[in-house]
Amino acid sequence: MEVAQVLHMNGGAGDFSYANNSLLQSKVILMTKPIVEEAINNLYCSNFPTNFTIADLGCSSGPNTLMAVSELIKVVEKNRQKHNKEPIEYQVLLNDLPGNDFNTIFKSLPNFLENLKMEIGDRDVGPCLFNGVPGSFYGRLFSSKSVNFIHSSYSLHWLSKVPEGLEENKRNIYMVNTSPKSVVEAYYKQFQEDFELFLKCRREELVKGGSMVLTLLGRRSQDPTSKECCYIWELLAMALNDMVSEGIIEEEKLESFNIPKYMPSPTEMRIEIEKEGSFVVNRIQVSKVDWNIVYNDNTNKDDNGGYYVAKYMRAVAEPILISHFGEAIIDQLFFRYGQIIVDRTAKEKPQFVNLTVSLTNIR
Amino acid sequence: MEVAQVLHMNGGAGDFSYANNSLLQSKVILMTKPIVEEAINNLYCSNFPTNFTIADLGCSSGPNTLMAVSELIKVVEKNRQKHNKEPIEYQVLLNDLPGNDFNTIFKSLPNFLENLKMEIGDRDVGPCLFNGVPGSFYGRLFSSKSVNFIHSSYSLHWLSKVPEGLEENKRNIYMVNTSPKSVVEAYYKQFQEDFELFLKCRREELVKGGSMVLTLLGRRSQDPTSKECCYIWELLAMALNDMVSEGIIEEEKLESFNIPKYMPSPTEMRIEIEKEGSFVVNRIQVSKVDWNIVYNDNTNKDDNGGYYVAKYMRAVAEPILISHFGEAIIDQLFFRYGQIIVDRTAKEKPQFVNLTVSLTNIR
Repeated sequence: MEVAQVLHMNGGAGDFSYANNSLLQSKVILMTKPIVEEAINNLYCSNFPTNFTIADLGCSSGPNTLMAVSELIKVVEKNRQKHNKEPIEYQVLLNDLPGNDFNTIFKSLPNFLENLKMEIGDRDVGPCLFNGVPGSFYGRLFSSKSVNFIHSSYSLHWLSKVPEGLEENKRNIYMVNTSPKSVVEAYYKQFQEDFELFLKCRREELVKGGSMVLTLLGRRSQDPTSKECCYIWELLAMALNDMVSEGIIEEEKLESFNIPKYMPSPTEMRIEIEKEGSFVVNRIQVSKVDWNIVYNDNTNKDDNGGYYVAKYMRAVAEPILISHFGEAIIDQLFFRYGQIIVDRTAKEKPQFVNLTVSLTNIR
Repeated sequence: MEVAQVLHMNGGAGDFSYANNSLLQSKVILMTKPIVEEAINNLYCSNFPTNFTIADLGCSSGPNTLMAVSELIKVVEKNRQKHNKEPIEYQVLLNDLPGNDFNTIFKSLPNFLENLKMEIGDRDVGPCLFNGVPGSFYGRLFSSKSVNFIHSSYSLHWLSKVPEGLEENKRNIYMVNTSPKSVVEAYYKQFQEDFELFLKCRREELVKGGSMVLTLLGRRSQDPTSKECCYIWELLAMALNDMVSEGIIEEEKLESFNIPKYMPSPTEMRIEIEKEGSFVVNRIQVSKVDWNIVYNDNTNKDDNGGYYVAKYMRAVAEPILISHFGEAIIDQLFFRYGQIIVDRTAKEKPQFVNLTVSLTNIR
């Protein structure tokens, strides 16, 4: 499976679209805002540049795409106005894989810019130039030494490909605590290779002193098969296994499917960053978020949020599942997945673990 | 009418899509290739940069989009290999209005790049970084002093908006030789304003010494109502007028419609370039192309190419016509337009006039 060809969030604006099922991701962006603010304040106030280039990696297409960017620009503008500095020419580089729905983002830009300028409330705002940059962030995306600040939220836990050597993973689709050592090692090796390549590319693109704030799904535990990162996929594997038992999905089909993700620990991230050597770590923060946090915010409840969780997982995982299993099983799969999540969340309160790492390029 | 909102070539890959009806435009790109080559050779060989940023304005979405870019890169690479210089990091900025189908371009990029590298036949080719840049070229698009070479073919004859003060243009949709002075002046004024703004924006974006090669529909005659630029629209107006006579289109509807285009003379272009003062003109070339040139290349003829001309005009003008007249009249309109063109081209051999101007930024 070519991840770069098949991985993208569900497009459009329908019931199962990412655009309509990305409230969790928007919560996470808001939760990590203080770290982003700190990084961008330090960056801007170090030399008050009049050209400021911001990149968002894995921007997707939906309300979060421009929300993240708008928060960044507002932070810089607040500082600029406070220090009474010249207008800034912003360049905003929105990156995602080529299958992402860039057209929808582009069509919404004129209104977005109008609103942004109104919110900033200063007639003196400089030009905001938007570019769409299609491609994998496990490769070069931007010109050498051209970017001041890179932001990425909930993207970097995707690997560049399904690791090789997962034959022993059988009817699992991600690591579980009974996974053979070879499977765990294959996943870790892919993470190391990918993250090293990611850092090498970004060090070329960031100006010296440029910063990155990266938020991704991770774990606190040293154990990569820990429930805190694997459970959500284990439950999806359960639903798939049920369908194998009932003859709806072929066993070989399931055995050849694995999710191209890795959720690292803070230590694993530090090791790679130090090994690569171009970045200093300003901060690594671990945060947690209930699977059904957004549902809990809703007053209109008729279950414990399990179906809601299944629905946003669908917006994320559907394209990759369709490319392997075909479209016919999807409705049923996610109905079963929802049932399983409802059942489990009645007894426990599962959470995602987020890692946010703030880095500065010293080369 | 907001031109930036409604103007785009017909999307998709259907019978009336721009992608399938842009052979004329591709002929013109090939016709003007020597001037582009000359400009880009001079530019590259002046200081052999290792970063080379190329922008294509009004790139549209179809085979021509990447053809133009691929020609440009191949010219630079030929020079690089001849002079045995370092690999170049290319940045390619593809611009069009936000309604353009960027998704289709982006999805074709991985294959395009593979083919390009094979054609160049050098394992040493540097990274080619593609950006989509949505927005009107009558405004800032790119970072200050960031672009080496700007190319644009068959886009700049579109104005930023329908000129004001065309009330006296009645049932015409563009200038004709009986147009009142006020109409001719309104069109010219809009051209002057737009082209000045275009030059001002580009001078900010081009590096000093950077070049532009712009090809647009124009005319040789001093008279802006000359048949050589107005005839194609006059015939479309005839078809529309027939439909008004038959009560299919309301007279007021036709009277309030005008095409936001201007086809300048070489002198008119020179005047604006000199007035703005940032560019020297290396060359202005006038070329001509039969309306049915591509059809003439075909062996499989069953008429004189009139319907063929109507079809590619439809790929270009349909979105703007739909936004004013609605979708219902379109099939009939273009059938009538085709008939009229068949009739006229049986008696005469109408041609488009192209202006190609090669400029260097001296500021």
